[in-house]
Amino acid sequence: MTTMIHSNERLDDLGRKGYKLIQDPQKFCFGIDAVLLSDYAKVKRGEKALDLCTGNGVIPILLEAKNRGEHYSGLEIQPECADLARRSVEYNGLGDKISIVEGDVCNASEIFGRESMEVITVNPPYMIGQHGITNDADAMTIARHEIKCTLEDVIRESSRILKFNGRFYMVHRPFRLAEIFNTMIQYHIEPKRMRLVHPYADREPNMVLIEGLKGGKSRITIEKPLVVYKEPNVYTDEIYEIYGYKE
Amino acid sequence: MTTMIHSNERLDDLGRKGYKLIQDPQKFCFGIDAVLLSDYAKVKRGEKALDLCTGNGVIPILLEAKNRGEHYSGLEIQPECADLARRSVEYNGLGDKISIVEGDVCNASEIFGRESMEVITVNPPYMIGQHGITNDADAMTIARHEIKCTLEDVIRESSRILKFNGRFYMVHRPFRLAEIFNTMIQYHIEPKRMRLVHPYADREPNMVLIEGLKGGKSRITIEKPLVVYKEPNVYTDEIYEIYGYKE
Repeated sequence: MTTMIHSNERLDDLGRKGYKLIQDPQKFCFGIDAVLLSDYAKVKRGEKALDLCTGNGVIPILLEAKNRGEHYSGLEIQPECADLARRSVEYNGLGDKISIVEGDVCNASEIFGRESMEVITVNPPYMIGQHGITNDADAMTIARHEIKCTLEDVIRESSRILKFNGRFYMVHRPFRLAEIFNTMIQYHIEPKRMRLVHPYADREPNMVLIEGLKGGKSRITIEKPLVVYKEPNVYTDEIYEIYGYKE
Repeated sequence: MTTMIHSNERLDDLGRKGYKLIQDPQKFCFGIDAVLLSDYAKVKRGEKALDLCTGNGVIPILLEAKNRGEHYSGLEIQPECADLARRSVEYNGLGDKISIVEGDVCNASEIFGRESMEVITVNPPYMIGQHGITNDADAMTIARHEIKCTLEDVIRESSRILKFNGRFYMVHRPFRLAEIFNTMIQYHIEPKRMRLVHPYADREPNMVLIEGLKGGKSRITIEKPLVVYKEPNVYTDEIYEIYGYKE
């Protein structure tokens, strides 16, 4: 099978099972947050997983590489990104394991059905929407700002789509942590596990990984910090391992 | 002035301004959590502060030593603890700066009045109440378990007593973090700052320090980790500084 790769695109190695990802640097290339989320999330044998705001599809592809789930779906609202993701799935020969769906997260539960998934992952836009940039927002702005969906949309739809005891995994920015917990609890996804990601051991965290349980009881485990750099330009051993350099 | 110290009690140095604290090892001696909270909380010139669940009064005494507030109050439900706290206040000659009140946190807003304080501090019982131990609970059990008051009681009364823009400081256990944030938001005390306390740099946190703002907007700063031990039995420099060894 031949997969089209356009001249403005590049093919990046994912460091897992030889998988590669088609990316367009003009749009949005995946970052360390997507890599960390796909490592934090676990999909067990027989489970179905859905990645919301999937962008170029890096998360379902990495999840497939590392887990033994039954099937993976990715939902993306931007046609060009969905097309990119579909071609990456095709390039890696994963058409029977991963489906990319073009659609709006705000009515994701209508697209996928209520209580249809065991696992949801999401690397949503981090920044609170600004009205000034709503009209002619480009792909990168849509990926970063809450223009097409809010945190509440993401959590509400996740709660509807998850089965009882289903797991919700999200990466986000720490400055929204209180709002995140509050909204999760409001929609009956109990925060059960959290890990803060610090650029250096003695610095404030700049990312947070969260696992929630639909219908879970109140009790959370705060894990030890995940530190990215040992020194400038040198990752810690744990980060190298997550990136697959030690496979 | 002569202060009574009973034979079962001891006089401990607080490492600040020569202040000492009367403690009864049969009851409950203050721990590092009280010391960290009294360092995390700030009382500005002219402000009035109230410490709920004050126990032997260590927090108002340390707050007075480190801040320039107008007045400090401590509320304690157990008569023997309140008596201990009052004698420590007297011993240190702080009778005009600190008042110890014997009473129930569940109606603290009736005792102190609504919107009467700029600052509230609290080191509440951490463990969820167990019905089996309710009847003849001893002082130590009451200090550790939610027998006389729940997290919700503490936060509800704090919200009533705080002035608009007043600050709420609490030390608690990380496993209740989601519930803490959710309850604070419910009672309009927005979590604004949080610091996790780790026994060692690479271990899970076992305490959390939180600052909330009554009527504040949603946005929290997660600070860098506070690490207690550099190696077994050796505190980190920051902990030595908080304890006052470097004054």
